[in-house]
Amino acid sequence: MKPVARRLGLGVVGLGRLGKRHAENLAYRVPGATLAAACSPMEDELAWARETLPEPPHGPHLYADYADLLADPQVDAVWLVTPSSLHAQQIVDALRAGKHVFCEKPLSLEVAECERVLAEAARYPHLQATIGFMRRFDPSYKDAFDKIAAGQIGRPFLVRSQTTDQNDNDGFFVRFAATSGGIFLDCTVHDIDVARWLLGKPRATRVFAAGTVALHEGLREFGDIDNGVAICEFEGGKLAMFYASRTQAHGNDSHSEVIGTAGGLTIGRNPRANRVEIYDASGIRNECTPNFFDRFEDAFLHEARAFVASVQIGAGEGDGAQSGATLADALEATRIGVALRESLQSGQAVTL
Amino acid sequence: MKPVARRLGLGVVGLGRLGKRHAENLAYRVPGATLAAACSPMEDELAWARETLPEPPHGPHLYADYADLLADPQVDAVWLVTPSSLHAQQIVDALRAGKHVFCEKPLSLEVAECERVLAEAARYPHLQATIGFMRRFDPSYKDAFDKIAAGQIGRPFLVRSQTTDQNDNDGFFVRFAATSGGIFLDCTVHDIDVARWLLGKPRATRVFAAGTVALHEGLREFGDIDNGVAICEFEGGKLAMFYASRTQAHGNDSHSEVIGTAGGLTIGRNPRANRVEIYDASGIRNECTPNFFDRFEDAFLHEARAFVASVQIGAGEGDGAQSGATLADALEATRIGVALRESLQSGQAVTL
Amino acid sequence: MKPVARRLGLGVVGLGRLGKRHAENLAYRVPGATLAAACSPMEDELAWARETLPEPPHGPHLYADYADLLADPQVDAVWLVTPSSLHAQQIVDALRAGKHVFCEKPLSLEVAECERVLAEAARYPHLQATIGFMRRFDPSYKDAFDKIAAGQIGRPFLVRSQTTDQNDNDGFFVRFAATSGGIFLDCTVHDIDVARWLLGKPRATRVFAAGTVALHEGLREFGDIDNGVAICEFEGGKLAMFYASRTQAHGNDSHSEVIGTAGGLTIGRNPRANRVEIYDASGIRNECTPNFFDRFEDAFLHEARAFVASVQIGAGEGDGAQSGATLADALEATRIGVALRESLQSGQAVTL
Amino acid sequence: MKPVARRLGLGVVGLGRLGKRHAENLAYRVPGATLAAACSPMEDELAWARETLPEPPHGPHLYADYADLLADPQVDAVWLVTPSSLHAQQIVDALRAGKHVFCEKPLSLEVAECERVLAEAARYPHLQATIGFMRRFDPSYKDAFDKIAAGQIGRPFLVRSQTTDQNDNDGFFVRFAATSGGIFLDCTVHDIDVARWLLGKPRATRVFAAGTVALHEGLREFGDIDNGVAICEFEGGKLAMFYASRTQAHGNDSHSEVIGTAGGLTIGRNPRANRVEIYDASGIRNECTPNFFDRFEDAFLHEARAFVASVQIGAGEGDGAQSGATLADALEATRIGVALRESLQSGQAVTL
Repeated sequence: MKPVARRLGLGVVGLGRLGKRHAENLAYRVPGATLAAACSPMEDELAWARETLPEPPHGPHLYADYADLLADPQVDAVWLVTPSSLHAQQIVDALRAGKHVFCEKPLSLEVAECERVLAEAARYPHLQATIGFMRRFDPSYKDAFDKIAAGQIGRPFLVRSQTTDQNDNDGFFVRFAATSGGIFLDCTVHDIDVARWLLGKPRATRVFAAGTVALHEGLREFGDIDNGVAICEFEGGKLAMFYASRTQAHGNDSHSEVIGTAGGLTIGRNPRANRVEIYDASGIRNECTPNFFDRFEDAFLHEARAFVASVQIGAGEGDGAQSGATLADALEATRIGVALRESLQSGQAVTL
Repeated sequence: MKPVARRLGLGVVGLGRLGKRHAENLAYRVPGATLAAACSPMEDELAWARETLPEPPHGPHLYADYADLLADPQVDAVWLVTPSSLHAQQIVDALRAGKHVFCEKPLSLEVAECERVLAEAARYPHLQATIGFMRRFDPSYKDAFDKIAAGQIGRPFLVRSQTTDQNDNDGFFVRFAATSGGIFLDCTVHDIDVARWLLGKPRATRVFAAGTVALHEGLREFGDIDNGVAICEFEGGKLAMFYASRTQAHGNDSHSEVIGTAGGLTIGRNPRANRVEIYDASGIRNECTPNFFDRFEDAFLHEARAFVASVQIGAGEGDGAQSGATLADALEATRIGVALRESLQSGQAVTL
Repeated sequence: MKPVARRLGLGVVGLGRLGKRHAENLAYRVPGATLAAACSPMEDELAWARETLPEPPHGPHLYADYADLLADPQVDAVWLVTPSSLHAQQIVDALRAGKHVFCEKPLSLEVAECERVLAEAARYPHLQATIGFMRRFDPSYKDAFDKIAAGQIGRPFLVRSQTTDQNDNDGFFVRFAATSGGIFLDCTVHDIDVARWLLGKPRATRVFAAGTVALHEGLREFGDIDNGVAICEFEGGKLAMFYASRTQAHGNDSHSEVIGTAGGLTIGRNPRANRVEIYDASGIRNECTPNFFDRFEDAFLHEARAFVASVQIGAGEGDGAQSGATLADALEATRIGVALRESLQSGQAVTL
Repeated sequence: MKPVARRLGLGVVGLGRLGKRHAENLAYRVPGATLAAACSPMEDELAWARETLPEPPHGPHLYADYADLLADPQVDAVWLVTPSSLHAQQIVDALRAGKHVFCEKPLSLEVAECERVLAEAARYPHLQATIGFMRRFDPSYKDAFDKIAAGQIGRPFLVRSQTTDQNDNDGFFVRFAATSGGIFLDCTVHDIDVARWLLGKPRATRVFAAGTVALHEGLREFGDIDNGVAICEFEGGKLAMFYASRTQAHGNDSHSEVIGTAGGLTIGRNPRANRVEIYDASGIRNECTPNFFDRFEDAFLHEARAFVASVQIGAGEGDGAQSGATLADALEATRIGVALRESLQSGQAVTL
């Protein structure tokens, strides 16, 4: 495709581990876009930007303050890779400044705050606002979506999906537990979005969750767990089962399965690192993707390209598979995730 | 191993589809045993026995009546492959007649009746009574048990297990629904037993179940479903997730997964029919085991051999992996299965 | 099936490692047959038989001398598991004594001797003589044969097949090298037979072979190698590629592939030990079959049953897939194997 | 990494199917490079470039004539995706014009012409000249190379490698047969390069090849085949087996295997299209990569990035795994490929 003459100016906000990856994608690998600005309150992150990203005049303006970035006329859209607790207000600010918004998941850990953002966004129907559930852009998930849409498995009625990380003995996520919202809001939201997306966006009616601390005792003080399981019932007899884990030995094993009346399919069930198989005294094996970024590297890139293309053609929300998760999708993911946490804590099923 | 001079005399009771398979195994493939008797109230089943099983003097005495078989002094142990509703009383009758008992699962669909059998069996400690959860004898399940026991995956804390049948448009199981006890008591009991066995027989504390009718509307009048999912919490933070289905397109896909603190393993995750892979315009594929008997053919045979060996060496109940499910195991499977059905019907978690 | 009244009396000759396996199969697992006699010149092997096999009157007569076994009127068929150099004469002796013959491969390491046996066997058309290329009876190979016969891959024109053993540091096969005939006659004969069987028994026209000593230097003095590769051209543009190895790290990995004009198939390409997959820090893996007996355990059993059934119904040679390799098949395997050895030694293609 | 201030100016020559892919990569996806020029004698290909590639001043100058492109001072390196028969002279012309050269394989179908290019290139040691054996840059092949270099499989001594295309009933390659050099020079050169690269660049000593026409009778008039097999012996007892096919039903199945003294590994043995597995009445299957570009899409991109990086840091030839195939590597691939064709035609082994 030929890029339009005017490149879309993007402003990335937050240059932590994931922010850096986004910034590099936006700077070098998204035709039709230019990384116009980058923002971080951390001097070392800005130093990284100065060293790694293109130099002016082609490189991004660097800001320590979000308000300054919003004031930059070269910025057509903001790309938020900031702490979850900031997402909602930053989205609202961006919309008010006339910018399109891409924001990493979750929209918010609070249902009410999600609703507030949706209400505000309704006032700016000409602006895109997308939440980064990147699995929708993974080529294999996309292929599965297309096959289901083409009727290859009949009517889909059950999704099994999991987000499971390789065990991290440093316990980063234990320290993160205070603000993560718990394993279901941090990890399972991806699976919730996958399930809704692949089942045709049914409304959830009831959930049940359970969990355990297998290795990381430090989670107990936050009421959190390192392995959780859940069932979600949707209207129309549709079902989902979820598994989330922080303690896998073999790698990041985030995969999904969809079962329909005429067949089923799995996406990524063996999280192969690549196409190599090794034969030795331990048998025949493949190595696994160590973390979610390795697994979903392509998805992050396709997600960015799709967002830019979507803004350029002026697509509205909800234009189907090609577009990412809408604010409404993100609200539903948070609503279900919050209910899962409530079920975990109460030991009871929660009706939505 | 050298068989002892005196072969164990077995009396198979019930010669339906599964009973015939057991009878052939017992007649031809179990060293140390002899098929001394067979019993069925159906004339066509007895005719099958006359044609297929060895002839006297080496072949079995044939009976139309269970009481007559129990009176046969050549019968050391009975092998019950009868309707579930008869199991409990037939076991009691066999024990009272001084016979060891192997009985197909389930022990009973009623917890109280299970308990009655246990109480009676306690009076005959010298007699074996085993319920046929054959997966324990499948070589792959056995290998998994051994690997877990050897600590290869650390401390196991989560089992995911499923019993899923290829769709049968004839709807045999719809007609069977009135007496099957529902999908959880009919199918998931296998997974319950697998989970308890592989997790070290923890006590279940709470369950939740949900389900749907994907294809077989006729099940609704029985309050039954054709696809069900469930979570079972055990003491000590152990967990299980179950899936049962009557509607798979690709075959009988009964498999299990065990996750531990240092690794995990799956048993039969791709239900390959054999070692052939086919390449054609549809891709690369393997065919799947069409039904549980094809999948567990070896397990049924090993189960029979283990029972015979166990009686011959006079093993008591609960001697570990080598022995099959005890009456107490079967009681637990029924107790949990009944709770799953109750949860399905109430929409609430059920505490055990 | 119902066994006929008169069981076929079998006499096993040779009770080495493989002979013991055959003897146990014949004694306990082949309906319609009885192990009437066993023969070994080694006292310790006869002692094993006395301890392990059924006792008289049901157990076999034991002989130290082959001539005595041939004189036993209870023996209807002999089962030769003896050193290769004895096969030809023992087959002739058995036929002259009026016995059917099953003989482990190879028929002989010499083409002329193979031809002599065929000439003699032609005088006894009522007697069965089968050479034990057991892969034909492996359920997966059988399924592949049936799929090809049904046209599922179009016209088959290329077979790739390998016989590769797990490395044995004890070097048994080095000591065995003096009499094995070399790696192609010892191992590749299986692949030759598979290729001919699956390609419709075409005539070989030209071969080329090459090889190397990867680990076992002791083979050099015998002109032998521990890894060999070969190409065999057949009439009608059909082709085969072979690989033989003594040095695999992961197990016995004997597998085959057939490519046709409309598809292809592989048999056993991943030599899974069973249905277990293990997840740990090294990735996801399956263990492999350690040796050919583990891989082909079922094949040996089906082979024995098929032989017995074939004799009982009076089948002649060449009755298709169900029957094993004929003497003519074995002659061809030896002829091609000898040509491969000649090509290895000369470095030139050999025309047949 | 931070690009240097001065971007490397690339000039792509040839805008056929593969040339278009290269041009898009060079224009949009290679940091540090700019597509300065493009050349094709075909007006429709230039029209494609005007529509698809960036516009001036950022886009490439377009030329109908190669000499004009060589005269463009913005062009630092040429990227030849032209007919094989033109490669040698175009490389020489580029070197004489002071340009670095990347050229699609093969260097030439004639050994003498390869040697002429090497002699000429020796006069320009400061210029890079690389032949596009892209598999070296496929992430899985790269991982295999690294694992072997790290000793994970011991000493590698056998490579099995294949290049097999999905059958094309249009018969493009039949029309192409007159100039392709035959299946071994067209396809197997990739496998030859892989084998040499993974075995430590040993010298080939003898080859043997055979083949057949399975489907495309039109090849016979060119002395070509649609399925070919070959063995290549290297010094030091190293071996390779090759398979090339134009007639696969399931897709492009180009894969390799390396066997060492302590293990082995395969690269791409199941040519999965992606991470989706489908369950239906035909079993469990994955779709396959339809053609080499889908299979090696990443490899082409990494190849381009590596070439640019290599020129920018002034790397000389032969700097190991990171660099692509040298002219000397390409000469060896042609030398062996020519010998394979000669062996096919003569029916004899060919000594090198």
